[in-house]
Amino acid sequence: MRQASRQLNVETAGQRLYEITREVQSWVAAQGIGEGLLTLFVHHTSASLLIQENADPRVQDDINAFFRRLVSEDRSLYSHNEEGPDDMPAHIRAALTTTQLSVPVAQGRADLGRWQGIFLYEHRARGRERRITLHLLGE
Amino acid sequence: MRQASRQLNVETAGQRLYEITREVQSWVAAQGIGEGLLTLFVHHTSASLLIQENADPRVQDDINAFFRRLVSEDRSLYSHNEEGPDDMPAHIRAALTTTQLSVPVAQGRADLGRWQGIFLYEHRARGRERRITLHLLGE
Amino acid sequence: MRQASRQLNVETAGQRLYEITREVQSWVAAQGIGEGLLTLFVHHTSASLLIQENADPRVQDDINAFFRRLVSEDRSLYSHNEEGPDDMPAHIRAALTTTQLSVPVAQGRADLGRWQGIFLYEHRARGRERRITLHLLGE
Repeated sequence: MRQASRQLNVETAGQRLYEITREVQSWVAAQGIGEGLLTLFVHHTSASLLIQENADPRVQDDINAFFRRLVSEDRSLYSHNEEGPDDMPAHIRAALTTTQLSVPVAQGRADLGRWQGIFLYEHRARGRERRITLHLLGE
Repeated sequence: MRQASRQLNVETAGQRLYEITREVQSWVAAQGIGEGLLTLFVHHTSASLLIQENADPRVQDDINAFFRRLVSEDRSLYSHNEEGPDDMPAHIRAALTTTQLSVPVAQGRADLGRWQGIFLYEHRARGRERRITLHLLGE
Repeated sequence: MRQASRQLNVETAGQRLYEITREVQSWVAAQGIGEGLLTLFVHHTSASLLIQENADPRVQDDINAFFRRLVSEDRSLYSHNEEGPDDMPAHIRAALTTTQLSVPVAQGRADLGRWQGIFLYEHRARGRERRITLHLLGE
């Protein structure tokens, strides 16, 4: 049994989903581990991870529109407002999705379903650099 | 340290929770691994996984009713409508719950709490066959 | 490759987030595992786990207020009411957050981001003792 890990930095440009499937699969393939467990972890509290359909990009737009409707940016709802009207909603949208994802590895790749892509979900209005750790355990 | 994995197929019949605890525990028990980590992963973007109370089935009904109220099937809210009025809401309900779950294994079984059951959550209106991977790591 | 596990009991006192980062990091540091994967699992269906900002406590208050607005305690919405008006909303709030979290371990500690804390999220109105398993795999 072996393990490997890597930092993946993603430059974002505002609230939306950013697909990282290809970068993740390339790194997994290069580790020479046939069967195991891949874990992704995002080191932020206003961005999150999501596995969702990557065939029609409008699915991603509709998901983002839903979360914008669900979590209002009305400042009067929040007490933590110093970091701007999009900050507290960003924390809540992150809490509603996930900070970490694990995917079984089979035949040397993350065993995603046919329509599944891995996304970083940026919840802040302005872009920033987001750090994700990829951790792989297996043999 | 060893690992094992298995595909579990679940035939669904519409929007609700389907308990899979017994199948999961039987498979874990048969692997002869006393202590470790079990991961479940669903290979779809309109079904998800959930650990919830399995004592009173009305808890499952109330959870499902909540998600149906929260995520409207009004087509005018979505741009991706080709796959039917239940498709986009299914993706969103999946995003609000989880694609993957890990459970510590102790004394040869998934160490669930007394009232915890593992469920596949089907979000589409019509039934289909859903594929879940069980992955076990331990010794 | 080695593994270790521990039960962590948290005494709660009503609906809010309880930070457990320090207890978790102390235990991880004592295991002498430099690189690996830490998994936390809560053995209840009306409490959950969350990684969120731990700098300004009002972020936690705003998150809790959001979940209280989102999931009504109006009994007429639910069929499972025997355990009190806060029980069914507690199950739903737990379903919207997570039962399990995994965090990569690097240099002997859970590799959290600068502003990330690990919290137990109590969803019931009255306090109780909550059980969490910490499971560590690595070397």
